[in-house]
Amino acid sequence: MKKRAQEVERALDVLLPLPEGPEKRLIEAMRYAVLGGGKRLRGFLVMEVASLFSVAPACAARVAASVEMLHAYSLVHDDLPAMDDDDLRRGQPSCHKAFDEATAILAGDALLTRAFEVLVDVDTHSDSQARCELVAALGAASGARGMVGGQMIDMLSEGQDLSGAEVTRLQALKTGRLIQYSAEAGAILGRAPSHQRHLIAAFGRDLGAAFQIADDILDTEGTAEEIGKTAGKDEAAGKATMVSIMGLEQARAHASMLAEQAANYLSSFGEKAANLVALTDFVVSRRS
Amino acid sequence: MKKRAQEVERALDVLLPLPEGPEKRLIEAMRYAVLGGGKRLRGFLVMEVASLFSVAPACAARVAASVEMLHAYSLVHDDLPAMDDDDLRRGQPSCHKAFDEATAILAGDALLTRAFEVLVDVDTHSDSQARCELVAALGAASGARGMVGGQMIDMLSEGQDLSGAEVTRLQALKTGRLIQYSAEAGAILGRAPSHQRHLIAAFGRDLGAAFQIADDILDTEGTAEEIGKTAGKDEAAGKATMVSIMGLEQARAHASMLAEQAANYLSSFGEKAANLVALTDFVVSRRS
Repeated sequence: MKKRAQEVERALDVLLPLPEGPEKRLIEAMRYAVLGGGKRLRGFLVMEVASLFSVAPACAARVAASVEMLHAYSLVHDDLPAMDDDDLRRGQPSCHKAFDEATAILAGDALLTRAFEVLVDVDTHSDSQARCELVAALGAASGARGMVGGQMIDMLSEGQDLSGAEVTRLQALKTGRLIQYSAEAGAILGRAPSHQRHLIAAFGRDLGAAFQIADDILDTEGTAEEIGKTAGKDEAAGKATMVSIMGLEQARAHASMLAEQAANYLSSFGEKAANLVALTDFVVSRRS
Repeated sequence: MKKRAQEVERALDVLLPLPEGPEKRLIEAMRYAVLGGGKRLRGFLVMEVASLFSVAPACAARVAASVEMLHAYSLVHDDLPAMDDDDLRRGQPSCHKAFDEATAILAGDALLTRAFEVLVDVDTHSDSQARCELVAALGAASGARGMVGGQMIDMLSEGQDLSGAEVTRLQALKTGRLIQYSAEAGAILGRAPSHQRHLIAAFGRDLGAAFQIADDILDTEGTAEEIGKTAGKDEAAGKATMVSIMGLEQARAHASMLAEQAANYLSSFGEKAANLVALTDFVVSRRS
């Protein structure tokens, strides 16, 4: 995972060169947000799934960088005072603390824009249909009916009693769809046949759901030092999570079940998918 | 222009259907921002240039809607308290006043995302290369080295003494590039040969520059009622504009010169470009 993270970070470094002149501060804020550490789970997914379909690593790394930019933008905007108002991210001051609010808004906007721009510039051997598909799928995963919609519902439902089904839907939108997209992007790049596309999509969906429940468990159990962001936030904000609904033990068991299910979708890929199977273990056992 | 605006607004209405459920508020804010009036200058440009190259109006209207979404997102974010802090837009409360700050941030994010999504879904007779080009050009016009970069420079340079050349560059980034893109998008859709692409790009560039100077003149001379937003903002914020640098009369003459130059680039298109030539007059003579 570390090796993949380095490949993704190299691509990010190349895709966000620091200019001279007054726009330098904006690019600095973008680089601060996207190059300041993180597990690169989404980038790893792109790279590993792409390698199942023999995609050139340099090509996959650009798509991985695009997804990481999109993820970073969502964190920068979510941390803003008007949103979750969080001062800590990946153990560092969040973007609006390190720079200022206006710069953080613009850096997020520019990262989102750059994510799309990078996708249509990926070298897919002139297969522009694949590039269009990547853009369409990213738009669907991140827009009003994806991540942004999930964030909106999340904010509206603070202090409200949500059912398990409602929380599942909210989290599928807010976190799950981008994780699922990351897996699917690798398959789109590799022009995978449709039955394999479906397996990869199902894998990504269950992995994303397991990841989010594990995140909620960490928010309850972890310390800020471990998780690199403010702990106990959900409870303090009166947010319903699978932990508050099911209790800690049941939530843990549910996450493990989802992770196992995710791994099962990969069985037909055999040894080639070993890193992805290991990832399903990692997402539910991680401490940060 | 009114007829074109209606075509664009019909496309926007179709592309942003109101859902049931908790994400409704987000789409309402998006619709409020993008369907709340406006001249539709950018949409008009897409449609009129596309018609020079015999593009189907329904196809051009979608690209026009995409540009208007992008423009609306930039206004919503620019009006935020952390940015220009403006309560009035198109004669109505700005988005964060009509809704709230978090909703306005998310609505802007979702409009930006949707703009890209719509572009790759345009029916270009399976010409996915053209769709990719549209996305790449929009990214370049709106990202860190385009509109967002211009907004950043604008905020950093408040109260500073900028030269005429610096103001020209700032405005080219902040407003000019999206107007130029709108013209070019019509030519990309129409697969225009490269010499015509260049003429259209040069037309768009000078039209955009003329438009921005005219906007600065209106900000100095107009009333809030006429221009639908707070008047005298630039001077109050200590922002350098072509008016503050050249004086009102010189600025007016410079805008007229640019508009004329823009019209000249269209001469080889003859009668078909009459509406676009009329537009070059309109941008410098408008009162709102």
